Amino acid sequence: MTIYLDYQASKPVDGEVFEAMKPYFQEKFANSSSLHSDGDIATKALADSRKKIAKFINAEKDNEIIFTSGATESNNLAIIGYVMRNKKKGKHIIISEIEHISIHNIAKYLERNGFEVSKVPVDFYGIVRLDKLKEKIRDDTILISIQYANNEIGTIQPIAEIAKIAKEHNITFHTDAVAAEGQISIDVVKDGIDLMSLSSNDIYGPRGLGVLYMRKGIYVNPIVIGGGQERGLRSGTEDIPSIVGMAKAAEIAQKNMESESKRLIELRDILIKGILERIPKSHLNGHPKKRLPNNAHFRFDYVEGESLLLSLKDEGISIASGSACTSKTLEPSHTLIATGLTHEEAHGSLEVTMGKWTKREDIDKLIEVLPNIVERLRKLSPLAEKEKEVD
Amino acid sequence: MTIYLDYQASKPVDGEVFEAMKPYFQEKFANSSSLHSDGDIATKALADSRKKIAKFINAEKDNEIIFTSGATESNNLAIIGYVMRNKKKGKHIIISEIEHISIHNIAKYLERNGFEVSKVPVDFYGIVRLDKLKEKIRDDTILISIQYANNEIGTIQPIAEIAKIAKEHNITFHTDAVAAEGQISIDVVKDGIDLMSLSSNDIYGPRGLGVLYMRKGIYVNPIVIGGGQERGLRSGTEDIPSIVGMAKAAEIAQKNMESESKRLIELRDILIKGILERIPKSHLNGHPKKRLPNNAHFRFDYVEGESLLLSLKDEGISIASGSACTSKTLEPSHTLIATGLTHEEAHGSLEVTMGKWTKREDIDKLIEVLPNIVERLRKLSPLAEKEKEVD
Repeated sequence: MTIYLDYQASKPVDGEVFEAMKPYFQEKFANSSSLHSDGDIATKALADSRKKIAKFINAEKDNEIIFTSGATESNNLAIIGYVMRNKKKGKHIIISEIEHISIHNIAKYLERNGFEVSKVPVDFYGIVRLDKLKEKIRDDTILISIQYANNEIGTIQPIAEIAKIAKEHNITFHTDAVAAEGQISIDVVKDGIDLMSLSSNDIYGPRGLGVLYMRKGIYVNPIVIGGGQERGLRSGTEDIPSIVGMAKAAEIAQKNMESESKRLIELRDILIKGILERIPKSHLNGHPKKRLPNNAHFRFDYVEGESLLLSLKDEGISIASGSACTSKTLEPSHTLIATGLTHEEAHGSLEVTMGKWTKREDIDKLIEVLPNIVERLRKLSPLAEKEKEVD
Repeated sequence: MTIYLDYQASKPVDGEVFEAMKPYFQEKFANSSSLHSDGDIATKALADSRKKIAKFINAEKDNEIIFTSGATESNNLAIIGYVMRNKKKGKHIIISEIEHISIHNIAKYLERNGFEVSKVPVDFYGIVRLDKLKEKIRDDTILISIQYANNEIGTIQPIAEIAKIAKEHNITFHTDAVAAEGQISIDVVKDGIDLMSLSSNDIYGPRGLGVLYMRKGIYVNPIVIGGGQERGLRSGTEDIPSIVGMAKAAEIAQKNMESESKRLIELRDILIKGILERIPKSHLNGHPKKRLPNNAHFRFDYVEGESLLLSLKDEGISIASGSACTSKTLEPSHTLIATGLTHEEAHGSLEVTMGKWTKREDIDKLIEVLPNIVERLRKLSPLAEKEKEVD
């Protein structure tokens, strides 16, 4: 049996979610655009699901929820859709240095298309520097996009404060809430969010589905053009089974969030303490307290993350060395570099992300095997050798 | 029990397909970008599925298959992606008058963005006028996009001939094959297709997934930007359960196509004969022979399609009055208008699309109830009254 500690990269679909989806694959399969009674069932499922997701994030209106094919598409629709629609107001946008790769690549695309993008730095813990954010704001800034929490090091941003700064300057605020959703209670009204990306899988819903929350009064251009579904903002026949699944996942997440987050924080803190105590020259990346309940992110001097990952693979532990979205490239994590780590330090990192099925034994096992692996790898490391000579 | 005769709008997921997908929801759920062994399983599932779909359409290379969130997105990626990438070569594209609404709306979008779009007319049966197509070709034409078969009236286009004309003029050829896939054997090499849109659900696979076939040597710009999945052409974590499902669906479709199409053609022809014989002033829309095995499309003088649909709803028969994608608007079908019908004639239409679970009894039931419904509605119709007076 594999121990899975890579929940940030992908999550299994919750059993209850799967049960909720099931009838929509084979029995209630009609198109919600059809006028017959089978179509009516689909239309109702769509409306009910939209309501549940609106409730999950406390959106004021159900139609502020737009279904997309996933968080990446939501980020595209939010950012590209917004700036294309509003480019007459200005061509400057602000993001943070530690956004998800999809946001960074969208930024590059916009830069090639006549927009200017400023990146706000973060502190050593990965928290966005609000003083620097204020400095970057210009008269032609039309959008600020800063993630709710970081998908690698788990640092939670002061979202309400960021939104307040945006509002004071009459700038629209988007947040990629994928890493945070289901772990932290999100209230779009209280937080002052205008646009927010959500993923279904990150709350144990099915893959291939996401949501863009779009506050009333905010307008974006569509990215996918066609039959005019989702108020013309996202064409294509709606994926009803997945939509029903995500709605169920949101319902469950909302119900269990408090107890589950408490449980994960306990496991997380046991893990952090265990590793830092048992492994010399080990460090925690990210903030000690303002971090996601399920995230523990370490670095070990003189060790490569890739080697750690492969050694853990041999022990039957599935874990990530950096961000899963870029793990097949050899680039060091841009997030870790942004927190001030050197390339060597960044490469020695290991990301542990827990989830609903993570048990105390899994954590104990990691605490048990990791010290030996690190020690063994250090023996092989030329860097560690050098350091010893110096000592 | 409802009789479902609206397979063009939506199809149930095949039981075998659902079984193939199942393990990927809860057990084999990892991210294919992850380097651990769970990630390896996902990577293999992705590669195997790509191979099966390549085989389904006889693509030369597996990497000519790009997974998208559905046929609408495939059409966007094919057309917008192609013209944005190749606009230096020219800004003129050609589509037919009876393309799916998503293609027409993409065309409108392109016209607003500096491109010119010509629309080729069709004959009374819905077949693209090849003489007109040749006339519309200009030196700056970079793309021709013509559907494989029509999603409303079921007319099958002479795709290989169209592709040949495109090739002779060095123009890239895209076809939306959604209505045809699984019913007609498609061979992208023999047919000479450069870009082709497929939908998963249209071969009894899950919703929310599609494919763009892109021949080696053809280049498009991405629509959804992010982590660089699908060779950078379609970012976003891959929806492995749905991808596995679509691959299974393609495998089954390929295996059963011949026998199933034969079965459907028999049912279709019984239905067409039965309706045309029993209902006076009834007509078949589309071509009598060059039509999809599952499609029968009628019109009845002096009767509104909406009323027919609602009367059939009362009888427990789910059926479409036009194209499901636009059925919630009151516009007459652009396809029917393009074949030369008047608005009144187009409004009196009924689309019957059969599928894997359609039985002889379903067809018999429709043949039994429809004549009375049409007769009753005609008695209420002021148009019929007027006609009687004239008779």
